Amino acid sequence: MTTGQHEFTPRLAHNFSDTEDSPVRALLDLVSRPGVISFAGGVPDPTYFDLDAIRSAYDAALSRPERALQYSSSDGELELREIIAANLTDEGIPSQAEDVLVTTGSQQGLTLMGQVMIDQGDVILVEDPTYLAALQTFGLAGAHFVAVDCDDDGVVPEALEKAIELHQPKLVYLIPSYQNPSGRTMPAQRRRDVADILLRTRTMLIEDDPYSSLRYSGEHLEPICAIEGMAAQTALLQTLSKSVAPGIRLGWARVPASIRDALIVGKQAIDLHSSTVDQYAAAHYLAHPETHQSDAEKLEVYGQRLRTMVRELPRALPEGTHVTSPSGGMFLWAELPEAYDTDALLPYAMREGVGFVPGSSFHVDTSIRNTMRISFVTNAESEIVEGVTRLARAVEAYEAEQLAA
Amino acid sequence: MTTGQHEFTPRLAHNFSDTEDSPVRALLDLVSRPGVISFAGGVPDPTYFDLDAIRSAYDAALSRPERALQYSSSDGELELREIIAANLTDEGIPSQAEDVLVTTGSQQGLTLMGQVMIDQGDVILVEDPTYLAALQTFGLAGAHFVAVDCDDDGVVPEALEKAIELHQPKLVYLIPSYQNPSGRTMPAQRRRDVADILLRTRTMLIEDDPYSSLRYSGEHLEPICAIEGMAAQTALLQTLSKSVAPGIRLGWARVPASIRDALIVGKQAIDLHSSTVDQYAAAHYLAHPETHQSDAEKLEVYGQRLRTMVRELPRALPEGTHVTSPSGGMFLWAELPEAYDTDALLPYAMREGVGFVPGSSFHVDTSIRNTMRISFVTNAESEIVEGVTRLARAVEAYEAEQLAA
Repeated sequence: MTTGQHEFTPRLAHNFSDTEDSPVRALLDLVSRPGVISFAGGVPDPTYFDLDAIRSAYDAALSRPERALQYSSSDGELELREIIAANLTDEGIPSQAEDVLVTTGSQQGLTLMGQVMIDQGDVILVEDPTYLAALQTFGLAGAHFVAVDCDDDGVVPEALEKAIELHQPKLVYLIPSYQNPSGRTMPAQRRRDVADILLRTRTMLIEDDPYSSLRYSGEHLEPICAIEGMAAQTALLQTLSKSVAPGIRLGWARVPASIRDALIVGKQAIDLHSSTVDQYAAAHYLAHPETHQSDAEKLEVYGQRLRTMVRELPRALPEGTHVTSPSGGMFLWAELPEAYDTDALLPYAMREGVGFVPGSSFHVDTSIRNTMRISFVTNAESEIVEGVTRLARAVEAYEAEQLAA
Repeated sequence: MTTGQHEFTPRLAHNFSDTEDSPVRALLDLVSRPGVISFAGGVPDPTYFDLDAIRSAYDAALSRPERALQYSSSDGELELREIIAANLTDEGIPSQAEDVLVTTGSQQGLTLMGQVMIDQGDVILVEDPTYLAALQTFGLAGAHFVAVDCDDDGVVPEALEKAIELHQPKLVYLIPSYQNPSGRTMPAQRRRDVADILLRTRTMLIEDDPYSSLRYSGEHLEPICAIEGMAAQTALLQTLSKSVAPGIRLGWARVPASIRDALIVGKQAIDLHSSTVDQYAAAHYLAHPETHQSDAEKLEVYGQRLRTMVRELPRALPEGTHVTSPSGGMFLWAELPEAYDTDALLPYAMREGVGFVPGSSFHVDTSIRNTMRISFVTNAESEIVEGVTRLARAVEAYEAEQLAA
């Protein structure tokens, strides 16, 4: 009996027997075609990578090859964790190296938290909308999501408290600063109100904080984790992807001692440890802030792009659209009148040569179709203006063909 | 009501509510104390990292910062996958870039395969002994292990066939070349016999192949994946950790199209993608084999260390001990008479200043206590001789105190 190449059908695990690729990543392939102006990806402008400092950091790492090229510990190199802990302490979260777990990007922090905390059917409370990769990742771990009502200041405290009482969630997942996808930020008082509820109900928080280094206006806001009592029940996730460069692929989780060992076991299984070379380079980079030349310029340019997008975007979108007004981060969020379907709008936009992300993937209730995420960081101002013009044409064509009836 | 720092107890997921750190990694901390001669870790000698070539590779990567510092695709950079595919084709496994998934070390290949293939209670057949991190990783995914009888040529075909009939396993997990922990290698005929069984029974194989670049004697052997028909039902895992350096933390899985999409979804959740910097450095390194200065010297030195260990070790171990005779890799495996308990021996060894890994963690049946793993690559020959002398003293003391009755 012979068995040919094509007769074998593997039996996949239940959760993977019907998997779909991330719609956003599929979209990113589409919009990376030449000539397309993409408002889709949360992709930093490589012009503002601090290349000299990064090169020095890798040179420094490789000057100690017996360490930088060797196996690392699963929680991360002590040298890197010490600098991160010092920075956290400066941010108002007193921390030691042993409070920090280095991750291969902060996405890995989400996976680890899902893996060690979530059993099939456990409830996670999320903002509406929320980061779609968190929905995917926690979903693979078996989570059941409940979306909590939000206003322009983030999650509504009364709604949060009611949802906690009703659903007894394992976790609450929040992105308090310059949220992906909405761009909105929780003010200081709202953070205190939320912390108060989480402390009273003894509810564990995942505070996802990738964007706080991208502040263009407004006051600096401390993480919820910095509020008294919260460090013992918060996993704070941060990353170098936005502040330095995504390709270095390093983030970290600041976690209470009560979950640290479990996370390390999960991390051993997932990749044993993060790249040692990258860890030593990151430690050198973070230890030498005086070499970071591009930071101020990047914030000024991104802030200008944000203002341009805020000024231009309304002419493309129908009357009655609500657009958020971020003071940092990478994204704007538009809620169009209910008759509009942004999934159906996207092909019109692609035909005009402009990309965005339809909002449906960011909602727990994927039947919500009238929202969209707009990134403003990647493109120069002239491209933003041209992209909005294309989007305006796309909306017009969509309205003529799809909304005429 | 106030909540202090120490009152919060998180509710962990079922599989993590009673986690233990890897016993080997805990041991590695112990044996890294100054003065200890460690035969414990599978740790390359940093003397033979090809530093000039690695430096050039990182310089080349950072000369294209707009790519090397940016987000990557989840399956890995095309440039790296193309070189890996070409090397696989040279190894007798015709491959295209799309057959390859870049992983953050080959450990991640194990996690991904467990995640997408294993439901709670699914059976995986493994060699006895087998790689302990595979047991841990697949165990977290819910696997039930069945150990298949092995002889000095690896898994016994008749036992494999019987176990497949009896248990209908989801996967068979094998390390055919210079196995961790045993050091043994399946000869060509055994590989064909095993492939024949897997093809006839349509059983999926994970072929873990981290050590094949470390060949000190004997003929080159093709992976089982290269046998006709097997590529469609094999996930072949390889890595740079042994051939280049562990700190770069890159491996890859060569997988059939039928599981590729599911693996990519898993990879997106786990870390979105592997470090782009490391991927471009690896691509440059692999594309310039003419710059690899240390490979031949490393193989000669490691081979000499293996011969020294094989010559010296018997004087430390009791009569009746069976020691394997590897022709490559990093490890020897010793099976002592049944009365000996290597977990109990370890403290005596540590007192004498020598480390090894007790074998119990590598067995599905952890009540097996008379085995040990000995690494021979990290220490110079004089240290091997001295380490064996210390081990001999430890065995003597153990025998006097523990076996006297």
